[in-house]
Parts: sequence; C-alpha cells; structure tokens
Amino acid sequence: MTSFSTGPGPTNAPPALPEGGLRVVALGGIGEVGRNMTVFEFGGRLLIVDCGVLFPEDDQPGVDLILPDFRAIEDRLDDIDALVLTHGHEDHIGAVPFLLRMRPDLPIYGSKFTLALLAAKAKEHRQKPKLIEVKEGERRTMGPFDCEFFAVNHSIPDALAVAIRTPAGVVLHTGDIKLDQLPLDGRLTDLAGFSRLGDEGVDLFCVDSTNAEVPGFVMPERDIGPVLDDVIRRVDQRVIVACFASHVHRVQQVLDVAQRHGRRVAFVGRSMVRNMGIAADLKLLNIPEGLLVDLDQASNLPESKVLFVSTGSQGEPLSALSRMARGEHRQISIRAGDTVVLASSMIPGNETAVFGVVNGLVRLGANVVHQGNAKVHVSGHASAGELLYLYNAVRPSNVMPVHGEWKHLRANGELAVRTGVSPENVVIAEDGVVVDLVDGKATRTGRVEVGHVYVDGLSVGDVGESTLSDRLVLGEGGFIAITIAVDTSTGRPVTAPTISGRGFSDDPKALDAVVPLVEMELARTEAEGITDTHRIAQAVRRVVGRWVADTYRRRPMIVPTVIPV
Amino acid sequence: MTSFSTGPGPTNAPPALPEGGLRVVALGGIGEVGRNMTVFEFGGRLLIVDCGVLFPEDDQPGVDLILPDFRAIEDRLDDIDALVLTHGHEDHIGAVPFLLRMRPDLPIYGSKFTLALLAAKAKEHRQKPKLIEVKEGERRTMGPFDCEFFAVNHSIPDALAVAIRTPAGVVLHTGDIKLDQLPLDGRLTDLAGFSRLGDEGVDLFCVDSTNAEVPGFVMPERDIGPVLDDVIRRVDQRVIVACFASHVHRVQQVLDVAQRHGRRVAFVGRSMVRNMGIAADLKLLNIPEGLLVDLDQASNLPESKVLFVSTGSQGEPLSALSRMARGEHRQISIRAGDTVVLASSMIPGNETAVFGVVNGLVRLGANVVHQGNAKVHVSGHASAGELLYLYNAVRPSNVMPVHGEWKHLRANGELAVRTGVSPENVVIAEDGVVVDLVDGKATRTGRVEVGHVYVDGLSVGDVGESTLSDRLVLGEGGFIAITIAVDTSTGRPVTAPTISGRGFSDDPKALDAVVPLVEMELARTEAEGITDTHRIAQAVRRVVGRWVADTYRRRPMIVPTVIPV
Repeated sequence: MTSFSTGPGPTNAPPALPEGGLRVVALGGIGEVGRNMTVFEFGGRLLIVDCGVLFPEDDQPGVDLILPDFRAIEDRLDDIDALVLTHGHEDHIGAVPFLLRMRPDLPIYGSKFTLALLAAKAKEHRQKPKLIEVKEGERRTMGPFDCEFFAVNHSIPDALAVAIRTPAGVVLHTGDIKLDQLPLDGRLTDLAGFSRLGDEGVDLFCVDSTNAEVPGFVMPERDIGPVLDDVIRRVDQRVIVACFASHVHRVQQVLDVAQRHGRRVAFVGRSMVRNMGIAADLKLLNIPEGLLVDLDQASNLPESKVLFVSTGSQGEPLSALSRMARGEHRQISIRAGDTVVLASSMIPGNETAVFGVVNGLVRLGANVVHQGNAKVHVSGHASAGELLYLYNAVRPSNVMPVHGEWKHLRANGELAVRTGVSPENVVIAEDGVVVDLVDGKATRTGRVEVGHVYVDGLSVGDVGESTLSDRLVLGEGGFIAITIAVDTSTGRPVTAPTISGRGFSDDPKALDAVVPLVEMELARTEAEGITDTHRIAQAVRRVVGRWVADTYRRRPMIVPTVIPV
Repeated sequence: MTSFSTGPGPTNAPPALPEGGLRVVALGGIGEVGRNMTVFEFGGRLLIVDCGVLFPEDDQPGVDLILPDFRAIEDRLDDIDALVLTHGHEDHIGAVPFLLRMRPDLPIYGSKFTLALLAAKAKEHRQKPKLIEVKEGERRTMGPFDCEFFAVNHSIPDALAVAIRTPAGVVLHTGDIKLDQLPLDGRLTDLAGFSRLGDEGVDLFCVDSTNAEVPGFVMPERDIGPVLDDVIRRVDQRVIVACFASHVHRVQQVLDVAQRHGRRVAFVGRSMVRNMGIAADLKLLNIPEGLLVDLDQASNLPESKVLFVSTGSQGEPLSALSRMARGEHRQISIRAGDTVVLASSMIPGNETAVFGVVNGLVRLGANVVHQGNAKVHVSGHASAGELLYLYNAVRPSNVMPVHGEWKHLRANGELAVRTGVSPENVVIAEDGVVVDLVDGKATRTGRVEVGHVYVDGLSVGDVGESTLSDRLVLGEGGFIAITIAVDTSTGRPVTAPTISGRGFSDDPKALDAVVPLVEMELARTEAEGITDTHRIAQAVRRVVGRWVADTYRRRPMIVPTVIPV
C-alpha cells in the first residue's frame, strides 16, 4: 500500500546540521499520545513547540506523570529563543513547570486562554513565567524563527497553529486541530490562511494524526446541544454531566440546557471549578446570572431543579463521579432514576475504569447516557476527511505526521500520499528521530536518545526502569523477606531466621515449611566456613527461591538480609 | 425508562425454599463477564449449568485465574446431580477441574466438542471426569431435573441451550447465543424449538446479555470469508492471521482462503495447535490434504506461499504475536509489507495491550488489518435485534438476564419489557443473589456470599484481598525495609540500622538522609527503656513513613524488622 519509508528509522547519532538547514526533533508526542514537545533548530538557535505530559500506563505503576526527555536540550538551554504553546491541554502544557526549573526566564508564547491555564499551573509550582500573549493573525520574531499564528478549532477554546518561517523553509505545525464548520464560538480553523501559506510554499507540514484512521468528518460540537436537551428535559430527578474540565464549549451547552429546563448548576471537582472560573473571567464561557450554585446549595434543591457538571469522565478512581458510583460521595448519593451523562470520549487505556464507573452507577439504578448510546461526544481531532482538506489547502513539499501512535502516524502519511505528496517526502519520525530539512527535502538523519522521564511525588527522574521493574515484580508476587543476624567471625547465626511475606499469601502459615530449609542452609554455610554476609544472603535467596517456585509456582521477590554482629 | 426492580438486591440470608419451589443462584457470571456458573435447586437436589473462569483485571495483580465461589455448595456436594456445560469456552468450562477436586465423580453433560475440550483440560490436571455426551434434541433426566438440549450458534461449534423442567416450572438457559441465519456449518439456533417450548410455557428465561446494548443484528460469520479473501489475495508477502484458538469456523474460512491463493498454513501457539487438532478429528474443521505445514517448514517457504494462523489476538504479552511485534519471535520476523490480520474482537480491558501489538507491528512496517478498518470479526453474542426474536419466540413469564456486567443486564431487561414481559417479572440478580421461582413468580429472596476466589500458581484461595491490597501498595510504591538487631534486655541497638528500598528509587543514595533519623529514634526508644521489639518497630515505621511522605510525597510500604539478640 504505502511506499514511504516506514520502520523505526535511523539509530545513528545525528550528523552536524548543514549550514542553512533546519532540524526538527520531537522529545515526546510521536509514537505515543501525550507529552508533545518538538524542537526546531536553525543557525544554532532553538524554538520549542509545546511541552506536555503523558499519563502512565499499567507497566509504569505508581508514576504520576511522564515528561518529555529534556536531555537533548539541557546543555543548550541558552540557545532556546522561545516556547510556543498551541493550546492549554495537559499533554501540551503540563511539563512547562519542569522546563522552567531549568530555564526560568524562557519566553512563552500562547493565546490568552492557554496562558491563563498555564499561569494557574505555574502558580501551584510557585513560578512566575514570562508569558507573551499572541492572537491568530499575529506574527512574531523569535531569534531566526518568524512565527505566524492561525486560529484552529479543537476541544478547548483559543487553540492555535503556528507557521515557522526560517531561511531553510516554512514549517506549518497544526497543533491539535479539527475543522468544525459550525464552531460554537464562530472561530473557524483558518483554512483560508493555510491556503495562502500553501501558495507561498510550505516546506514541512507537521500534522495532527490522532484520528487519521477514522474515516469521514467529526460532527459539529453544536449538534451535541440538542441531544443533551433531549436527554435532560425528560428527567425529573437529578442529572450529572461529566466531561473534561477544559472543554468550555461542551460545558457551555450543558449550562444552556440547564437554564432552559430550570435547573441550577453546580460544578464538581477542583479542576472544573478552576477552569470554568478562568473561562468565565475571559468571557469564553457565558454563565447566566443566578444559574450557578455551590455543592451544598445544590444538595438542598429539589432533585428536578439541579444539574451537576463533574470531572471524572475517565473513571479516575478518586474523582467525584467514581465516588458516586461506589456510593461513597459525601454530598451526592445516586438513586434509581437519576441520570448520568458521560459527555466525553474514552481515552484508550481507560476503558476498564470507565466501564467500572458505568456499571457502578447502573447498579445503583442510574440511567447512564454515554457516547455508546447517544451522540453526547465528538472528538477534538480531525478525521481523515478533514485531514484531506488540510493537505489540499497546504500542498506541502514534505509531511511529518505528529501527535499519535505508530498506527495513527502511518495512516496520516497514507492520507498525505493520496493527496499527491510524494511518498519519499513523508517522514515518519518517532520521538528522538532527527529530521533535517535541507534544500527543500526532509530526511531522517539520525537519532537522539529519548527515554521516559517519570515524575513520582516530588521528584523527577529518580524513578527509572529499574525501580519500575521492581515494582512490577512486587505488584505481581509480593516479597519474602528473610532476616538473620550472623556472627561474622564464625559465620554462625546468632538468631533464628525471621521469615515473613507481604503480598504473598493471606495464609499466616504459608512460609512455615521453608524455615527448616533455611536453617539447614545456614548450618551448611557455617560448616563450610562462609562468613561473608553477601554470600550467606545469596545462599539463602537460592534456597527460598527454589522452594517457593516448587511449592507455589510463583515468583515473589526474595529479600535476604544478613546482619553482621 | 425501566420500571423493573433494579438495584443490587437483597442482602439478607435466603429464607428456606418453599416446597415445590425452584431456587436459582449464580456463583459467578452475573455482574461480570466470565466464570459463569449457575446453580439450580429443587427438592433438595442441585443442578449446575457451566463452571468457568474469569480473567483478572488490573486491581488483581499476579492472579492467574478467578474461580466461581464454591462456598454455597461445598457442604452439599453429594446433592449435585449433574453439571451441564453449554459450550467449550474457558469462561464456561475453565473451573471444572477445581470443582472436580471436590467431587471427582460428578456427572458432566455436554456436546461432543465441548467435552473434547474439557477432556484435554482434565488431562492436564490428571483428572478423568465422568463425561456424558448429549446432542441437540436430546432429553435427559438428572435427579428431579429433566433437561432438554437445543442447538444454538456462537463463536465456537457445538454450543447448546438447555431447558430444565421441574415440577416448579420450566427454565430455559440460552448459554452463549446468537442467531446467525446463515451459519457456516448450517447448524441454526433452534428458534423453532424455543417457540415450541414457549407454547408449553417457559417460567424463567435466563438470557445472554453480552450484546444487549448493541442495536441491530450480528452479521453472518460467513460474510467474513470474502473480506479475508480480498485482503489476502492482494498480498505478496507473508500473512499472519490471529484469532481465538477455539474459533473453528473463523479458522475454517482462513484455511479456505489460504488454499484458494496457494498458501500453505502453519498453526502458531499451543492452544491453536491443540484445539484445531481436536476440531479436525471431530470433523468440525476440514483441513485440505497437504495444506498444513509446521512452523519450521513454513519459515522455509517463499513469503507469498505461506500463512500463519496464530494466537495472541488479545495482546497477551507472551503470545507469538506479541513477540513478533517486539521483534523477538524466533522463527517469524516481521518485515515491511507483511500483513497481519486480527480477526478477533477486543475484549474490554485488553485495549492497551492489543493497540501495543498493533503499533509494534506497524512500526516494523507491517500492514495491520483489524475490525476497526475491515469487517474481519463478528461477535458471538446476539445483539438487541436478535434478543427480541428470542423473547418473542419464548414468551417467558419471568426473565433473568445472565452473562454480563450491570449495564448489559439492565439493557437486556429493558428489551424483555419492550416485548411485553411485565417489569415486575424481570429479575436482575447479580452473583450470589438468590432467585426463587414459586407459584410461577420469580423473586429475589436473599443473598449468599460470593467472593472472588483467586488461583495464583499452584494454590487456590490463599491469595485473598489482603494479599492483593499489599501487592497494589508494593506495585505503586515499592517498599523500604529497615532492619535492626536490638539487645532486648536494654533496648540498645547492637548494630547500625540497615535501610534499603526496592521499587522505591533508582538513586542509590535516595534513603541516606533517613539513617540519622532512625538512629535518633532508636536512641530515644532506648533512653525511654523501650525493649519490646514490636514497639521499637512501630516507632521506626513512624519516623521513616513521615520522612518519606515529607521528602518524596510517596507511600511505599515501610517494613521494619527488629531482631532480638
């Protein structure tokens, strides 16, 4: 089918960038959905587009966030002219505070709402970043990079695409984009602007790949309003609508429906309260006078007169909605006949959690409306049909699919080829792969190392693959600890071995049978004159490991501690 | 919308069963998808339908299998007249060996293919169960239970529904069912038989709920053949088709297409090889002479002349397909232009694993065809449209949705009501809820305890909620172990404390700063004359726990060991 160069790409270190060339490398976001961060280099100067976080998966237990890998720029912090943010989602701005720790005075460009969300985040980190507001249609120079901003629509207001002009050529980066032709706020994706840029000539087009596999077009956001109205007007008990805390237009439609049916609204969840406050202050959200009540007031209203707008649409276990589903929410207890609307997508990987919440709510008698049984959600990312419009408007010389897993990138590349882009001008470049634009041709020339950087609690980077691998072993099988005090002059144990397990068995006698085996082994090491605590520990580990494999066919971690006395 | 009695149901212990009444209780399978097992009681005698396993989820780490909870029957083993198996899937037969450990001479009824799969499983457990083969149309008496079997189609051959006649009334249990009107083997679901039974009067109808939320009808299995043909005939490199190892009709269609295009076929994966051998022996699978080759032969054939039929369609990490996706398979290394077909569903909870495999394959250059981009899979369970046919044929007095999570059960109950079943005759009875059929009316009368019974390695039941809860803590944060030898006559430490962490940090100095705090605390306990090892351990735990929370904002397990010397 495709003939463009797929495969993981080069493994060599990148060569020196030829003079007059432009270098592009993603430190996150390509080959995965999350932690978007792309670095552009020209004439020794750097420009960064986005700096987001990725949320961990099952094989990354205990981790809070995953950051882009800053190693490729950490020795060149002073070369960075600016950070440009395309929009305010966590996977585009979430890692900014960590970049700011390294370079506090970094100029950050973004739209009003994007910067307002970043400012709130920076405040939590006690940072005062240097924020420079830009609007669609504006053009700013940052070192050798001449940036022009374009309006795009997405599932958050005030999103931007950015064109980066350099002597090496023109790059257009879509950010996250769709082409809603009836946007709620009237702010269309600037297809005309893209066409004008296409007339000028776009040398490299970095395009959102998220929905490249999905045929057709995304339904307009405003078509959700009537569906919500239809659901909510029939209900004579409580209504709870869960959606993303940054989806201002979705919330706007919920508020309008609530108003129409005489329901007061309470926001539930810290980020929902905060973000909707910001959106209202910036006049992006219109909250009718007197509509809003707080949670305690709402609990005292008649059930038919209240509507809750809540976080928790992804089944997050600590969210308000999950607590309602388990019957553990302090103010809101679900009763038969209540209606819960999940006006949200299901992010891949969250299915089990979301279905768990749905089942819990249904079990308590709630009617649950979700995208599986009603049109209460549309995606924020362009489907294949819309991407074709983009390619045809921009007519790029080279295409670099961004924002997606491999299957999305490949599907996006195929769309480019179908619009006439030459297959050899489609570059699939996962995180770390270096793309050089030289003489109008983009080529994968090398690779810098891009690993996962984990944030766990307060620290960054000290939890790495070795710790995660231990956590996986411990999570699967627990551990067995054996402690012995040994006289190191003779190798003789001075106490009986203490053996205990955690995460191994509920049976308190589960480990009794191994005690005599350990004692025998200790008698042997003593008899052989072994006094080295490390060797004694190894011997004990071997005996216990073999016993547990034979007896239980399990693989707990075996942790011997030999104390020299 | 619904008016039937939802909610979790009664919590009281069940009352005595009135004479002449029939009792039904699920020990698994209702409120979840898996470990199906329903117990029927009449006149002091018991009949069991199915005995399957459930596969663990993320919050059940390290567990291999989950069994139905046998406690409700373990004191009444001699009262069981028979076990009836509706079909050979693991969620219907997988727990039989564990039931046989308690009652080795239990008579087991099932169709030929079901019993052949069970026999293979029993052999691995070194058991020789008492197997009694039955066919559709046959009728057998098991104690007071008069059972009649009906052909049904599903995603495995030779599936049966069972009607159970007792003096209390007639129960019809569908097992897993769909209504393919053009089945590959010509064996239709016996809708006519259900109608006849409906004429006689069905007092309780236990109905598969899996797809009750899905509108419409399942496409015929045979329509997949032309799609596979269309994909495979264009390919001039290797083709790998992954599907369930028991889906004989799917594999048949793959073999037919391979034959047509001159490709030899190799089966990959232990269960695929075993099950297709059984199916061929029973003439359920037709393997053309000379079509099959083994894996080594296949590796030596030209790429355009071979097709692999593999397990691993659910992204199981140790499966052949996952190893191919990681580039770790010994015989099959994926090259650009190879085609992989996932002719399978995606079981909820497996999405991340399956997408991981797809992305790995795409990254290596393979074209991946799956149900998201081609019609290469149909479900084995009736959609809502088919369920309406069933309700209209059977015209039951009472309905008990089975085989599903709460959202499926509720949707199924609503379908029953729409066909005219009175809402008060729909009983939603999750695992353990006791349903009594007395004088033609089914009622939820009480509840027996049904917990999760975990198999981990060789043992059953010793891993319980406390062990799992420890595993979750260890998996999220690892542990910090502190070991001290103390002179219990004085409370004085005779060694310096040994402090080490696993799954906590990659940084070897991560715990250095807590050592002096522990030493100070030990000096304090000694000064206060504390000699009790337990109290000393508690004091150390407190100090380390507080330090790690303040310093790292993490919650590892803190494991102090105080050795008395």
